[in-house]
Amino acid sequence: MALNIETIHAARERIAPYIVTTPLLRLHNLDSYLGCQVYAKAECMQITGAFKLRGAMNKALSLTPAQLARGIVAASSGNHGRGIAYAAKLLEAKATIVMPRTSPHVKVDAIRALGAEVLQCETSERFRIADQVCAERGATMVPPFNDEDIMAGQGTIGLEVIEQCADLDAIVVPVSGGGLLGGVATAIKAVSPRMRVYGAEPAALPRYHASLAAGLPVTVEQKKSIADALVAQTPGEICFPYVAANTDGFAAVEDEFLLKGMRLLLTEGKLLAEPSACIGIGAVLQRLISVQPKDKVCFLISGGNVGLEQLRMLEDVRL
Amino acid sequence: MALNIETIHAARERIAPYIVTTPLLRLHNLDSYLGCQVYAKAECMQITGAFKLRGAMNKALSLTPAQLARGIVAASSGNHGRGIAYAAKLLEAKATIVMPRTSPHVKVDAIRALGAEVLQCETSERFRIADQVCAERGATMVPPFNDEDIMAGQGTIGLEVIEQCADLDAIVVPVSGGGLLGGVATAIKAVSPRMRVYGAEPAALPRYHASLAAGLPVTVEQKKSIADALVAQTPGEICFPYVAANTDGFAAVEDEFLLKGMRLLLTEGKLLAEPSACIGIGAVLQRLISVQPKDKVCFLISGGNVGLEQLRMLEDVRL
Repeated sequence: MALNIETIHAARERIAPYIVTTPLLRLHNLDSYLGCQVYAKAECMQITGAFKLRGAMNKALSLTPAQLARGIVAASSGNHGRGIAYAAKLLEAKATIVMPRTSPHVKVDAIRALGAEVLQCETSERFRIADQVCAERGATMVPPFNDEDIMAGQGTIGLEVIEQCADLDAIVVPVSGGGLLGGVATAIKAVSPRMRVYGAEPAALPRYHASLAAGLPVTVEQKKSIADALVAQTPGEICFPYVAANTDGFAAVEDEFLLKGMRLLLTEGKLLAEPSACIGIGAVLQRLISVQPKDKVCFLISGGNVGLEQLRMLEDVRL
Repeated sequence: MALNIETIHAARERIAPYIVTTPLLRLHNLDSYLGCQVYAKAECMQITGAFKLRGAMNKALSLTPAQLARGIVAASSGNHGRGIAYAAKLLEAKATIVMPRTSPHVKVDAIRALGAEVLQCETSERFRIADQVCAERGATMVPPFNDEDIMAGQGTIGLEVIEQCADLDAIVVPVSGGGLLGGVATAIKAVSPRMRVYGAEPAALPRYHASLAAGLPVTVEQKKSIADALVAQTPGEICFPYVAANTDGFAAVEDEFLLKGMRLLLTEGKLLAEPSACIGIGAVLQRLISVQPKDKVCFLISGGNVGLEQLRMLEDVRL
């Protein structure tokens, strides 16, 4: 399977009955803070609360009935696991989600509530266990990003934003392994090549900065960031060339600015997003991406799954 | 000045350069909780963070240059004052805002930041103090709701929601004195009479329940509610007949359900709204308004000015 504008269009048609077209919101009250005309693509309002459902659904729908009957497997404690569990439920397939023993009960319960089997293990063991389940049962592993079907599903966001506002000047996309950015950038550069596409990754984990400088995927040191959904140490080897060919710039954002972005989006924009989803706003606040007052800039708000108690950390954040 | 569909259309044209058309959001993730197809008219995303700017702007734009030069005055628990302060700043007039001492700091600070003078007093004294300022200075009092120009400005929301979704079945509107509901209901019943229009007021302050039963505006006992923007003890005497003639039902909502609504809108809908703005969702959660799964129900989310520290009260709320 390739990733291109045709496979992204096909993904869109395939997943349309199962996802929602999320709103592209014009957030006037953020303009003076960010120095541009601010738009937010609210994937936090997607079913399951994150964009991950798009890729998960596209992958699940591309499997044969026989493959679905043997089940699908994901190693993820977060939005990818939830997306896979939801997709499997809709398609009446068995989902097995391999999660670290340290996962919060609330996440385990949410995935169990979707009818998925949860296997808990040591964090370092999760990929080995997931592989073992696939081998024993003939089940299909669904990777979180390094897969062209997954990327095509995420790329449908690019088609939507261009239809929702044809004259956007730029989009800023949160980046971990590169599945979301690879898909979105491929869609946008095919349809609207003048639109600038930026990636934003945690300064603590600058895997794309390092890899683009080296010209191939390289692995960075594992460090902690508040962006708990952007933890890949290495770009997906399948994602990397699509990202390299279709992006105009990258920002490595400090947690401090990510949190300012999260606070700004919540208190002035009135949108609740998880920390990782606010990294693009943080990139502009940190002046890592240059924007002009007349620029229409879309921030891809990738997800909104955050506990209320986590909002306390925003109380002392100053804009 | 009368309130009717013509004056509401005129208000819309007058205020158009100064306000934003807020989005009507389809919040799929709330459907299973509320038992209908959920729409939110996001006035929390209005400039100044609340619908009040519409009426304030319409009123200020109807004053003469000489009147503006003597200043404008408002007695307000927050959002109306902020709307007046913003309107005055745009029109280069002096604004004086008389606020209860109990107003949240976030609202007081926002008004001062717009360059307005703030006078704080006991809640029961606020109208007397405002009258006194007007008498001393020859300034113009802008009432928060009991005025047909104000109501016409708020009524522009009714025109917008019908244009944004022509086949809405119902709208639920937060109520205090009745300026918002009177304006919105008058607009909707003129354009789309089959659409049901409901008011939602705090159970602690059921001034419309009491007044509609009596057939004229009556005053209820002053009691505390978490809905800090819905504190009127008496319907506006100008508002009352418009509300009585154009609404299909009323809900008196307990704080417990209002808070459930606020939590639901934030954690599942991903929208930040102030407590008062969530009372319509609370009304349906409390089963005070009957809705069907096929019904398209719009909740008017009247404002989003809430301090982050106030969100702590939601942590223990169970849906």
